Amino acid sequence: MTVRVVVWGENVHEQKNKVVAGIYPKTMHGTIAETLNAAGGVSATTATLQEPEHGLTAERLAETDVLIWWGHAAHGDVSDAVTERVAEAVWSGMGIIFLHSAHFSKPFKRLMGTPCNLSWREAGERERLWVTSRNHPIAAGLPDHFELENEEMYGEPFGVPEPLETVFISWFQGGEVFRSGLTYKRGAGNVFYFRPGHETYPTYHDANVQKVIHNAVLWANNAQPRIAKVTEAPNAPVETALEPITERGPKLHEAGEEGYR
Amino acid sequence: MTVRVVVWGENVHEQKNKVVAGIYPKTMHGTIAETLNAAGGVSATTATLQEPEHGLTAERLAETDVLIWWGHAAHGDVSDAVTERVAEAVWSGMGIIFLHSAHFSKPFKRLMGTPCNLSWREAGERERLWVTSRNHPIAAGLPDHFELENEEMYGEPFGVPEPLETVFISWFQGGEVFRSGLTYKRGAGNVFYFRPGHETYPTYHDANVQKVIHNAVLWANNAQPRIAKVTEAPNAPVETALEPITERGPKLHEAGEEGYR
Amino acid sequence: MTVRVVVWGENVHEQKNKVVAGIYPKTMHGTIAETLNAAGGVSATTATLQEPEHGLTAERLAETDVLIWWGHAAHGDVSDAVTERVAEAVWSGMGIIFLHSAHFSKPFKRLMGTPCNLSWREAGERERLWVTSRNHPIAAGLPDHFELENEEMYGEPFGVPEPLETVFISWFQGGEVFRSGLTYKRGAGNVFYFRPGHETYPTYHDANVQKVIHNAVLWANNAQPRIAKVTEAPNAPVETALEPITERGPKLHEAGEEGYR
Amino acid sequence: MTVRVVVWGENVHEQKNKVVAGIYPKTMHGTIAETLNAAGGVSATTATLQEPEHGLTAERLAETDVLIWWGHAAHGDVSDAVTERVAEAVWSGMGIIFLHSAHFSKPFKRLMGTPCNLSWREAGERERLWVTSRNHPIAAGLPDHFELENEEMYGEPFGVPEPLETVFISWFQGGEVFRSGLTYKRGAGNVFYFRPGHETYPTYHDANVQKVIHNAVLWANNAQPRIAKVTEAPNAPVETALEPITERGPKLHEAGEEGYR
Repeated sequence: MTVRVVVWGENVHEQKNKVVAGIYPKTMHGTIAETLNAAGGVSATTATLQEPEHGLTAERLAETDVLIWWGHAAHGDVSDAVTERVAEAVWSGMGIIFLHSAHFSKPFKRLMGTPCNLSWREAGERERLWVTSRNHPIAAGLPDHFELENEEMYGEPFGVPEPLETVFISWFQGGEVFRSGLTYKRGAGNVFYFRPGHETYPTYHDANVQKVIHNAVLWANNAQPRIAKVTEAPNAPVETALEPITERGPKLHEAGEEGYR
Repeated sequence: MTVRVVVWGENVHEQKNKVVAGIYPKTMHGTIAETLNAAGGVSATTATLQEPEHGLTAERLAETDVLIWWGHAAHGDVSDAVTERVAEAVWSGMGIIFLHSAHFSKPFKRLMGTPCNLSWREAGERERLWVTSRNHPIAAGLPDHFELENEEMYGEPFGVPEPLETVFISWFQGGEVFRSGLTYKRGAGNVFYFRPGHETYPTYHDANVQKVIHNAVLWANNAQPRIAKVTEAPNAPVETALEPITERGPKLHEAGEEGYR
Repeated sequence: MTVRVVVWGENVHEQKNKVVAGIYPKTMHGTIAETLNAAGGVSATTATLQEPEHGLTAERLAETDVLIWWGHAAHGDVSDAVTERVAEAVWSGMGIIFLHSAHFSKPFKRLMGTPCNLSWREAGERERLWVTSRNHPIAAGLPDHFELENEEMYGEPFGVPEPLETVFISWFQGGEVFRSGLTYKRGAGNVFYFRPGHETYPTYHDANVQKVIHNAVLWANNAQPRIAKVTEAPNAPVETALEPITERGPKLHEAGEEGYR
Repeated sequence: MTVRVVVWGENVHEQKNKVVAGIYPKTMHGTIAETLNAAGGVSATTATLQEPEHGLTAERLAETDVLIWWGHAAHGDVSDAVTERVAEAVWSGMGIIFLHSAHFSKPFKRLMGTPCNLSWREAGERERLWVTSRNHPIAAGLPDHFELENEEMYGEPFGVPEPLETVFISWFQGGEVFRSGLTYKRGAGNVFYFRPGHETYPTYHDANVQKVIHNAVLWANNAQPRIAKVTEAPNAPVETALEPITERGPKLHEAGEEGYR
């Protein structure tokens, strides 16, 4: 079963910034999709901010097993409607992976319920990622640590809820640490945040980073059919209660009425 | 140190529905505040939907240690601005307790990042709450289980993230179960969801329910000063890095520039 | 990749008790292994208390992807050496599933670090299991609830640590509730506790129960190679530190010395 | 209500090693107890390995709200009986704080159910602890990071279960990271692991470290009465079931019989 992946890219700095365009002549999302397809077991395509509905129509999300999100300069341009649609797809079972500056993207903040802030420094310093959960599927085939010689620093405290599992923690040359790989579940959807990937460095050309993203796609994929009507709050009528009961006391609702929302 | 509590009530059915007005002649929020004040260690006041800014101005939230939220018929009438203000107060350290139908309130959904849905039945059936975390501060002084002879049923699956701790699970006469007491943390704020409290039954006159709410207030209170600028993402300049580093590689940002949001 | 499963059975009541022998003429472990093999993707064999080293030699565990454990009357007869060997296999990546009365087995208590106690009643009452984590891989293909007409009751509080995820909660006819499906991780090993399976009832002939166990085997399997020397605490010499450092201050340990344990 | 603390010290290197004796002329446990008493709200005494029953009789544990544990060279000399007694006290509500090399102590391994291993280097390098959970009670009054100029390095992966909360993460000069402050709950007992404290450095004279330990004592204290018979698995007789049920089907147990353990 091939995992159907959409790599969503903001696609701004690749078009406007010569440094970024030079490092990623095929764009960042294009590069990530290409390496995923090369890694196998995955069929990855791309979508961008500039497309109608940002390339994320209801039809497309229904056929997406795992969505990867990279954004930075244009978080505010993502529509609230698409944000909510993405969140609903996650709740109903779509996996999602947020990369680097996507910590401030609308879908990530929507799913976390927290500020998602951090401290940062753009100095091209050394980052070293340590695996904190040995043999976690997302760390499969990796050494116990690996380095990125030039990266932007992200520092704690990271304004997110306590994760399900902490998979990576980063050491930075300038003295900070950061929880770089965190798993969450929101509804039936698996969520992974992965820190590296500042656009002025060749991070997504790094073999270890590529392996993490490929592993995370396989981990995030939920093979089961998507949950229908995932936000519904169904009434369970007295007449069909699993154990026989008799209605008692005063009521607000008429039979068959929907609940308040 | 007295814990400053605001009990927020939607205040709709107390005014419009004779049954509810009969059970709660002092309103639901008024009743809860009164019993908290009688229990000691707490200074509880009330706020309602109908007041300007729903009674929750920035000034008032700054002086609130723990906010209690009950709403049902008018979730949609709560303004997005007040919802966001409440969320920020929680992140910065205010405790919050959501009661019963507040599972569908805007602040709860905002903080959870999930649908927060469930199944339900209004039949006045018996509910029995079991303590699943022995000696949890929220269960202090309670027996290992207690009953509410007439309650609305809420059934699993409950559309919330995996909690920090499950404190209560309910058994329902009609055959369902529900995780009735769940703790979360969002930023520096302690969050507790407590299931019982349908407005057509005298639940908030029950001594065990009152004890849970009083315990939860003491548990949710964070004695430390509120965090300022809780959503800020500060830049850490190269010049003042904790370990001496030299800037390397290309950059997006000018010195002193704010990050993208 | 076929998942290699060993179903461990205490094998006491099947030999001594006519009722149990009548329900499980092929033994409980034999029945579970047979249904797993029939479900596909799995190669299941059995091991019992009475075999040398309880059938769980180091060699056998090394070739076991997932171990299933059922015990009840003879927990105390399991050797401490085998218990520790099983725990080490789990830490290094073997999955493990504990069924019913195995809540009091030595390996479960060893891995949990808690009393693992509960309340109980043997009255053949109705149990209804509710799925609390929609589309969890362990609940794949199940309805949102299912019933076992005759089961032993287990009641909360269940003396275990807060789980990674709660997958099932049981409703009992006599008024109790129980967290019936709980996931944990211990080292690289996935752990699942599943409540049903009292030996005087035909629980392991139930299609839904069989599906849960099969799903749990697939979920617990960790495809990666087992971690070698999983309890080792390696010294990281100054000479090969990842960042150049100079040794400073007084020392307890000579170079190359092992740490205290 | 004064919190009654016992600081347990192995008391070996203070007696045998001149460096350690020079830094801690009042012993390590004596120093920690002294600073706790000076901080207020606490009544701290000490106990050591060499005393009968290691100074931890059942009577003494019954009167201890929070136990602090430091050991290193003589983990193996701690009796299994005292280890189990400590674990039971924790389950029944006693708080416990494990310091530094106590990661390999018998009580910590007993409560975690995992190897509790790590990598290490004794080179007097710089450690910087970052607060990852803002305004956590254990971090009250601390800056967002603090440094220890000379410490032993502990590196990930740390062989412990996923914690309830991660409060501190350490950066090390030599390039490693470590989850330095972790909370757990075992039964009714709050558990905190805090990394710093190698005996050849003056760590427990550091004001920030002292503040963390004092905060952790207040956090770990559970004001409720200790749970009696915390490992018991009571039978719930059919006759007194909360909902009327009739016994059905075959049975293993006679009425009033104890369950198997």
